[in-house]
Amino acid sequence: MITTIQDVLKEFKSDMERMEHRIHESLGTDVELIRQVSKYILGAGGKRFRPLLHLLSARLCGCRDHSAEYTLGGVVEFIHTASLLHDDVIDEAKIRRGKSSANSLWGNQASILVGDYLYSKALYHGVRLQNQRVMDVLSETTTTMSEGEVLQLMQIQNIDITETDYYRLVECKTGVLISASCRLGAIIGKAPLSQEDALTAYGKKLGYAFQITDDTLDYAADQKQLGKVLGKDLAEGKVTLPLIYAIRKAAPEEKSRLDRILQAEAMTDADLSYTIGIMEKYDTVNEALAVAQSFSDGAKADLNVFPDSSPRQALLALADYVVQREM
Amino acid sequence: MITTIQDVLKEFKSDMERMEHRIHESLGTDVELIRQVSKYILGAGGKRFRPLLHLLSARLCGCRDHSAEYTLGGVVEFIHTASLLHDDVIDEAKIRRGKSSANSLWGNQASILVGDYLYSKALYHGVRLQNQRVMDVLSETTTTMSEGEVLQLMQIQNIDITETDYYRLVECKTGVLISASCRLGAIIGKAPLSQEDALTAYGKKLGYAFQITDDTLDYAADQKQLGKVLGKDLAEGKVTLPLIYAIRKAAPEEKSRLDRILQAEAMTDADLSYTIGIMEKYDTVNEALAVAQSFSDGAKADLNVFPDSSPRQALLALADYVVQREM
Repeated sequence: MITTIQDVLKEFKSDMERMEHRIHESLGTDVELIRQVSKYILGAGGKRFRPLLHLLSARLCGCRDHSAEYTLGGVVEFIHTASLLHDDVIDEAKIRRGKSSANSLWGNQASILVGDYLYSKALYHGVRLQNQRVMDVLSETTTTMSEGEVLQLMQIQNIDITETDYYRLVECKTGVLISASCRLGAIIGKAPLSQEDALTAYGKKLGYAFQITDDTLDYAADQKQLGKVLGKDLAEGKVTLPLIYAIRKAAPEEKSRLDRILQAEAMTDADLSYTIGIMEKYDTVNEALAVAQSFSDGAKADLNVFPDSSPRQALLALADYVVQREM
Repeated sequence: MITTIQDVLKEFKSDMERMEHRIHESLGTDVELIRQVSKYILGAGGKRFRPLLHLLSARLCGCRDHSAEYTLGGVVEFIHTASLLHDDVIDEAKIRRGKSSANSLWGNQASILVGDYLYSKALYHGVRLQNQRVMDVLSETTTTMSEGEVLQLMQIQNIDITETDYYRLVECKTGVLISASCRLGAIIGKAPLSQEDALTAYGKKLGYAFQITDDTLDYAADQKQLGKVLGKDLAEGKVTLPLIYAIRKAAPEEKSRLDRILQAEAMTDADLSYTIGIMEKYDTVNEALAVAQSFSDGAKADLNVFPDSSPRQALLALADYVVQREM
């Protein structure tokens, strides 16, 4: 019985090793700088969450084309990695997963261009599968993701962002790629549409649960020892769910101060402490976590159309994992 | 008889108007910032050279699916425009086609992300044609283009760049997209492979002729009045063909000074005058232009497999145009 992330990784260890090999093999270029930057960012502690979801979804649908699974696992990881490279330039990030960001090591130019390369190479490998539905999903996904990035830019420092705006951002930024990772598994598994829809819905809710939990971790004081910078979203002017809840409940003078913190050029420790204090006062991190939990529950319910199997157990375990993870 | 660029634009005026309409229609997003930036850059004096080449190539092959022509014309223009947006960020360009660059108006962040959007949207429209060969060409093209951008970055300020390196850069940066624009016309025109190969070869040589001519214009003093900044490549440390020829012929002390100019943080008017002086001394602009002319001649010869027709006359006229144009 698979119930934890450790069980999942153990059960699918050899598959994920083959996936890992394919990911590195897929880079395929003789351009040294692309190889260097890509190896660094692909090797920098990524959990291969999207490739794993893709593999499990394909297996759940009885996919026998394991080569296509590894190919598409690599494709979704490349798209994810490309978006991280561009994100870090946009956010002027110095740190990614506790290590120096690629842009701080090789500069913004290399990060932009290697990101472009990974996007292109992802689509290149997708195209070679000669499957129209795969390409439909991939091209819609990257388009929506890039719309989401622009939307996010437009919402920076906006204290009046609505929950609806926030959910749209989360869907574009995180939901569609995670959802596509699952859906592509159903497509290459030649699943009936009902199963494809179920996996698409599962992935979308999982993406929400994942991102909302991630957004709360930005304010979770005990994360500091895990090498995660606290208040990164706040410093970048990104208003996420626990902050939206806090703004909504704050007294006028509290809201004014939160707004000043958001508009400030630089964030001080006092700013962060004040913001966390307001969140604690109104218990908004737990309120956001409860929403994440309900998305996780919903994701699990979407898998009801499938009979019990080890991939199904694994996907259920991942739905628990995303709301429990501590890093 | 079509012999000049004006003849071409007159003959295919209504088609290019429909193309123009499709290009703007294809943007398809409700995200205001994407619309603003895209409209600006798509409207900023682009000559629609690649869409025109695509249209003419398709017509040359007897294509009857005019809607596919307009779609793919938009696709190649989007890819080109996306690469300009990213290029201008990489080069920290202030000016593009005599107007302020998008990054100087909206910032690097918007330029990077809207570039990503245009890449994605281009592939999205390409995918919707449901033609595997179209997608093969598009995905190979964007991959090669992004490799070329990284290669270019690696060759910045390299006085020892070889002609071979330079030609590879030109092929990646300019050749493959122009070549793909022509080839895609043959594909949707359902041309036999011999014709597709001929148009691919024509486009590749045309791309070389176009880029080499463009590289000489960077040092052509009478361009200043046309709103073009002189010595832009030199200031950015890009070593192009007329400079490669100059470096090769320069005396040791001349080469040393050229190298110092290339390595300098900022380029002075004296630096530019000196460099142009060396080029005039060894007549390297004309030497490069002769190479461009021979590529143009070769491109025209590639069209020998086609019988006379107005698209063929137009493509011949464009091969003359790229080596004659003054902006």
